[in-house]
Amino acid sequence: MQKPANPQGTRDFGPKVMRKRTYILDTIKKIFIKYGFEHLETPALEKLDTLEGKYGEEGDKLLYKIRSNRALLNEIDGEKADKLNDIFPNKWIPGDSKLGLRYDLTVPFARFVVQHRNDLTFPFRRYQIQPVWRADRPQKGRFREFTQCDADCIGSRSLIHEADLVKIYSEALFNLGLENAVVKLNHRKFLEALVDELNLDFPVERFTSTLDKLDKIGEEGVSKELVKNGVSKEKCKLLFSLIDSVSLNSENITQIAESFGDNPYAKEAVDELEELLSFIEVSDLKIDVQLDLSLARGLDYYTGCIFEAIVPDSGIGSISGGGRYDNLTGVFGLKDVSGVGISFGVDRIYEILESQNKWPQNLQTSSTVVICHFDKKSMLYANNVAFKLRLNNVPAIVYPDSKKINKQFDFANKTGARFAVVIGESEIKSKTLSVKDLVRGTQESLTMDEAIKRFNL
Amino acid sequence: MQKPANPQGTRDFGPKVMRKRTYILDTIKKIFIKYGFEHLETPALEKLDTLEGKYGEEGDKLLYKIRSNRALLNEIDGEKADKLNDIFPNKWIPGDSKLGLRYDLTVPFARFVVQHRNDLTFPFRRYQIQPVWRADRPQKGRFREFTQCDADCIGSRSLIHEADLVKIYSEALFNLGLENAVVKLNHRKFLEALVDELNLDFPVERFTSTLDKLDKIGEEGVSKELVKNGVSKEKCKLLFSLIDSVSLNSENITQIAESFGDNPYAKEAVDELEELLSFIEVSDLKIDVQLDLSLARGLDYYTGCIFEAIVPDSGIGSISGGGRYDNLTGVFGLKDVSGVGISFGVDRIYEILESQNKWPQNLQTSSTVVICHFDKKSMLYANNVAFKLRLNNVPAIVYPDSKKINKQFDFANKTGARFAVVIGESEIKSKTLSVKDLVRGTQESLTMDEAIKRFNL
Repeated sequence: MQKPANPQGTRDFGPKVMRKRTYILDTIKKIFIKYGFEHLETPALEKLDTLEGKYGEEGDKLLYKIRSNRALLNEIDGEKADKLNDIFPNKWIPGDSKLGLRYDLTVPFARFVVQHRNDLTFPFRRYQIQPVWRADRPQKGRFREFTQCDADCIGSRSLIHEADLVKIYSEALFNLGLENAVVKLNHRKFLEALVDELNLDFPVERFTSTLDKLDKIGEEGVSKELVKNGVSKEKCKLLFSLIDSVSLNSENITQIAESFGDNPYAKEAVDELEELLSFIEVSDLKIDVQLDLSLARGLDYYTGCIFEAIVPDSGIGSISGGGRYDNLTGVFGLKDVSGVGISFGVDRIYEILESQNKWPQNLQTSSTVVICHFDKKSMLYANNVAFKLRLNNVPAIVYPDSKKINKQFDFANKTGARFAVVIGESEIKSKTLSVKDLVRGTQESLTMDEAIKRFNL
Repeated sequence: MQKPANPQGTRDFGPKVMRKRTYILDTIKKIFIKYGFEHLETPALEKLDTLEGKYGEEGDKLLYKIRSNRALLNEIDGEKADKLNDIFPNKWIPGDSKLGLRYDLTVPFARFVVQHRNDLTFPFRRYQIQPVWRADRPQKGRFREFTQCDADCIGSRSLIHEADLVKIYSEALFNLGLENAVVKLNHRKFLEALVDELNLDFPVERFTSTLDKLDKIGEEGVSKELVKNGVSKEKCKLLFSLIDSVSLNSENITQIAESFGDNPYAKEAVDELEELLSFIEVSDLKIDVQLDLSLARGLDYYTGCIFEAIVPDSGIGSISGGGRYDNLTGVFGLKDVSGVGISFGVDRIYEILESQNKWPQNLQTSSTVVICHFDKKSMLYANNVAFKLRLNNVPAIVYPDSKKINKQFDFANKTGARFAVVIGESEIKSKTLSVKDLVRGTQESLTMDEAIKRFNL
């Protein structure tokens, strides 16, 4: 018999991992809700029409395509089926695939907005937390099935949305214990201004894809590549004087504005950032927000502000990205609908919290109280104790079999329970509970009310 | 351009629907947790090996199979690819599919348990709430992608698990406002006892599949079918005297025991039900639990207690089913592991709550407060108000554009907001908020503290 296993690039999330994942997602979700984002879910299955051509040629190759046997049988006529059988005896699956698995949450969201546009009230703020699939080569930290966690606002050009997203970053990353995270902010028009100022005679896209490598190859590497493309060394120097990363505040915006002089692209960016800043009290931000004119992130997509969040020295790239896109729904026939959104990389956040052991204390143990007993009589009493604990919202289980008490403690310890309760003759008589704190190794005799208080701490 | 649409048999869940679905799932989840069930998630993608042959021939046909382009290219040698191209020019997808989509949560759970058996502590209680996929013909109330909501306990034969599941039914259905729901309970051994007592000379499976039709074709129809299979009319009479549905309590169990006399199968069932009952205080149950000896539910699967929950007169069949299975993990090579579990039909519960309009009041409106304003100055002030509300966990958004106040109220009404706040000159001066209750149609002037209290009710 074959050993059962989950497919490569996928994961089982057991209870301990789920506690941690739920903590991350709940923390972010609560903040989305506070900022008026509403919950949306779309199906995992999408028509291939909806998915294909949206993620570039590379993306199309990574789409998981689906077929059902039932559809097949109707599709193939007898003669063709016979021929196929010659080629792949007993093991062919022919015909066109018409369904695919969700590749990200953005395209399904755009599809949803266009399809339901008459029922939606714009601006529409939604969050969406669902798995996506990519037929990628599995490797460390890269999965074929993983969770995306997005918040987008569509149908308004107001910069108040960008301001809210900056605040969401600040609260979410702070609440996750990532106080040293940095949010980077740029504007597409600054990138266009740079190309303009430097008189580059190659397209913005090539410039920014070079700039995107700054983290990896440094100023020197970027300069080299630009020089190779015909940019003078002087211009490179000018470039790096412009793209220094600075804190978001009005002085710094003013200074950047001055550096660019009258450049019309830069002026657009500066105006928008000043508007954005009017909606933010910088001193309220709990996380460092920096203007970083080198930030590009797939420029052909974003048309206004661009966001990225990183945790310095974590060894992990960005944990979130986003920005404004002016034509997301255009591919589905709805023009001139502007949106702005961000997406959290749940798996990367998980990895950082795990490697820095930044989980809250209460995630380390299970909150389920294990009730142990000595015989049939004390087991029935334990069953009543469980009933009362649950009535008071304390998760509880009775050890289900009549086994030696040490076996029962073993179970409690292995499941990661913080507390065990022991019921014996004397506890039944005195109407008390022997409560063992399995982390501290202490034991006390408590009344039911005292125990409930202890467990609910 | 094609009209964008989700695939047949799938659904988009917009904010209003999500509020309701989340309410159902959270209600059930809270109770699972209280009974010590821990959260598990398995991937949507499973190896076809894992899925195939587990759901019968019909089930195998309904499996969604997956393929990635990348895998393909490696699989086909040039000659074969050429031949294929002749048959399906430019549109073929050849080769074997090695992955499939999760068809239910039970088989992946069994796979998980066997795969991770050395890391798990038994008995293992888990709940799992995830979508499943079936390539079924879409029809009313039947979907290709839908959510299952399961709780199982594996690795113990104790009847305390069955008792906990009965209590979970009681609390979950009551908390969902389905006070008139009925939980039906049977035991496989009773069905075997019936076959034995009636001296049927056809297999238990055929008997129970006939019995399963009782709801649809009534006593007369079932009798007819049995008589056609050689059962005497007298025996049919005896049968229907035995399978009357009665409330679960010890008197009724005793009476059933007496009806069966010394039948050894019935004795086993009676013993187990008496044990089960020792863990339940019947007066604590909030939902009617009935012994129903006609309940079968795919007998070849269950080996002990069998559960079903229904809402009488809802026009919808069962909303939950479950039972004990002694050999779930056998197919994956792990023998003699007994488990018991139940599964809630989320979509059916949704349908009943919707048609009977049993949703809690607060689901009807959005809790997000919409803050309206008259000009740039009041918008900035509104932005500060939003900040303070959010600090106090009140979800809030500022209407993002400078539009006429009526447009802004329109937005608040259409998004289903319960409250809107209006900020103008006088509110800024008096440091108060004009709070409109959009449901009651009232308006009051409140301080920030008063408003926070109002919104948090």
